[in-house]
Amino acid sequence: MKYEFSARAHTLQSSPLLSIRTQMRRGSLISLAEELPAEELFPLSLLAEAASNVITANAEALQYGDPAGYGPLREWLTGDWFKSKGVTVNEGGVLLTTGSQQAVDLLSRVYLDSGDRVLVEHPTSPGCLQALRMQGALIIPVQGDREGLLPDHLLSQIKKYRPKMLFAAPSFSNPSGNLWSLERRKEVLELCAAHNVLIVEDDSYGDLHFEKYDQHPAKRYPSLYALENVSHGGHVLYIGSFSKTVAPALRTGWAAGSPELISMMSAAKGMADWQSSPLNQRLLYHLLDVSSFDLREHIALLNREYHTRLKLMAELLKRPAWKGSSYDLPKGGMFLWVALPQGLDANSLLKCALSKGVAFLPGPLCCVEGGGGHIRLNFSHPGRDALLLGMNLMSEAVTEFTARN
Amino acid sequence: MKYEFSARAHTLQSSPLLSIRTQMRRGSLISLAEELPAEELFPLSLLAEAASNVITANAEALQYGDPAGYGPLREWLTGDWFKSKGVTVNEGGVLLTTGSQQAVDLLSRVYLDSGDRVLVEHPTSPGCLQALRMQGALIIPVQGDREGLLPDHLLSQIKKYRPKMLFAAPSFSNPSGNLWSLERRKEVLELCAAHNVLIVEDDSYGDLHFEKYDQHPAKRYPSLYALENVSHGGHVLYIGSFSKTVAPALRTGWAAGSPELISMMSAAKGMADWQSSPLNQRLLYHLLDVSSFDLREHIALLNREYHTRLKLMAELLKRPAWKGSSYDLPKGGMFLWVALPQGLDANSLLKCALSKGVAFLPGPLCCVEGGGGHIRLNFSHPGRDALLLGMNLMSEAVTEFTARN
Repeated sequence: MKYEFSARAHTLQSSPLLSIRTQMRRGSLISLAEELPAEELFPLSLLAEAASNVITANAEALQYGDPAGYGPLREWLTGDWFKSKGVTVNEGGVLLTTGSQQAVDLLSRVYLDSGDRVLVEHPTSPGCLQALRMQGALIIPVQGDREGLLPDHLLSQIKKYRPKMLFAAPSFSNPSGNLWSLERRKEVLELCAAHNVLIVEDDSYGDLHFEKYDQHPAKRYPSLYALENVSHGGHVLYIGSFSKTVAPALRTGWAAGSPELISMMSAAKGMADWQSSPLNQRLLYHLLDVSSFDLREHIALLNREYHTRLKLMAELLKRPAWKGSSYDLPKGGMFLWVALPQGLDANSLLKCALSKGVAFLPGPLCCVEGGGGHIRLNFSHPGRDALLLGMNLMSEAVTEFTARN
Repeated sequence: MKYEFSARAHTLQSSPLLSIRTQMRRGSLISLAEELPAEELFPLSLLAEAASNVITANAEALQYGDPAGYGPLREWLTGDWFKSKGVTVNEGGVLLTTGSQQAVDLLSRVYLDSGDRVLVEHPTSPGCLQALRMQGALIIPVQGDREGLLPDHLLSQIKKYRPKMLFAAPSFSNPSGNLWSLERRKEVLELCAAHNVLIVEDDSYGDLHFEKYDQHPAKRYPSLYALENVSHGGHVLYIGSFSKTVAPALRTGWAAGSPELISMMSAAKGMADWQSSPLNQRLLYHLLDVSSFDLREHIALLNREYHTRLKLMAELLKRPAWKGSSYDLPKGGMFLWVALPQGLDANSLLKCALSKGVAFLPGPLCCVEGGGGHIRLNFSHPGRDALLLGMNLMSEAVTEFTARN
């Protein structure tokens, strides 16, 4: 039969990431394209021990659970972990999701009708753009600089478009790796609160902060959620994930905020898939609360290693091939967002790079429109050798491409 | 701020199931309301062993995986397991989902626009109705009898409404437990194929077949998918789950069908949550293909126990309190769909039952409209003692309620 897909299904047009992934799994490709953590740093033995303990302790670990997620893990989050970040969440204020991506999708489904206007920090994450497009939202970019969104442009876009929502990642956004200043955080929050714009604050990368401070980095760069500091009816939905700090295959993220929002999202969650894996949630809880694992120490370990990889990548970008390119060195996260030398197009460069055995993410996937002059490079996943080899191949591709033009 | 939810978010109005679940987890309630398998039959020690092996064997088990799901588990499904049911699926024809509910939701999102008409076997599963309503579909019931959907009514509804889709569960539907005859399966398939109606065939309960045959039950009652037997462009999407046969907390279901459909659903899956837990999928694969676990033997064990519980429940329904009620004894599945004595309303009875410490699912949750004269009773989860006690409390509630009216 001829399948008649829905009008918005076409927004799901296949991303080049899919074929990159397939080639990567065949081992024929070095990928600087994805958002993968370094698997050699996963706490495998403690996770294996947790799994074995959780499964044998109680058959309920394998049964259906609460659509909002395993209670003790939600309490762990809203306890010391959130509190150390100044984030206060009331009972009924947390939903566990299948990664932070599902939090974005569920909120879009319960909050947006087709044609509703949504502001996004620009460039923004490919997953966010996909979820918003699938919901039929009109996506409107807001300009920013190194300090964060530009308040003047934000205000003019708010006045012009009357948006329902702003999507932003003030701490190490995907792809730019930008870290907003405290001043800018306050200004953005104030403007959105004054105009009834719901802020979706993605803090998935916030813990990957490489600088050293006397105080907790979250005190110096508080989340918008923490800055507003209200427990009901607030303007910020705070989302995050264990994918970057523990392991992605546990598929555990969260949305935290006003119980009214969370309750509607939980109902949508039940409709979408009943619940995420309660087994994985119990396993995480055991790891975090019962075993000898220390998440803060583990994150410090990740940050040391990722920082080294970032510095290596930055060194390799000094080679002659990259003359004319530019980037801001991020203080954390997983990505470098590189402006290509003039005349180079990201999508064309990708074909050339793939033929040499290396992949990156072309800028247009992170942009409402345009973006062809940028690429996103991931430095967290490739080990140092792979990073060196991958960047050599990238340099070759750029050189060949520049010579050709 | 005042949250302005999307127009369809109101279709997610809270179901009484949520408060039933909360009370049940507090241990204060016997629930005949849910669709839970018996947790005392979970293969716990083999699962613990599998988890420990999988995690220590390879760090990739904790990394992001393929959005379509772990390859070897998809191959396991499409190999002997599907083949023994006469189900042939080509490469690219399977997507692993977070339970069968997500398969229904993803298909609805890529196939239905608001206002599209969808036929449903009636009564039908609460989860299916929720997903269709959230997508804005017009839901149209088709009448059936003990043999399955009535071809005449199906044809007249097709002609009248020109629907895009039919949702049906020919083997032990939720809630009626009905098992369609072979003849009726052929007729329904033929009508839908002739009128370009995509059939979503939910086979989540098909293996819970209590009768004994010389041949595999699926040969006697082939799925609509197996009956059509085409690998591309077919009229049937075949969905199912390991939730009822192994364990729900692994949250692993599937959709199988034409690669064109599956590819679009996989793109939607990536947008919705990237992927379901690859760790759980590897764990299942290890259990099914590497360990000494035998899924067929395990299902036979479940069926013996569930059949015993069903017979016990049927015995208890012979008590005087239930005079005037009626039901068809199912040959499998997890539910009895009981027509209440005249004058009894399911929602009002639920309040009375809850006050006594027992819960059931009121019929309206399974119906497009009406359904107040029916209740769904689950016999798979409560152990024999709980079943006896629960049915005693149910009898009390019915008696009290009848006396009151």
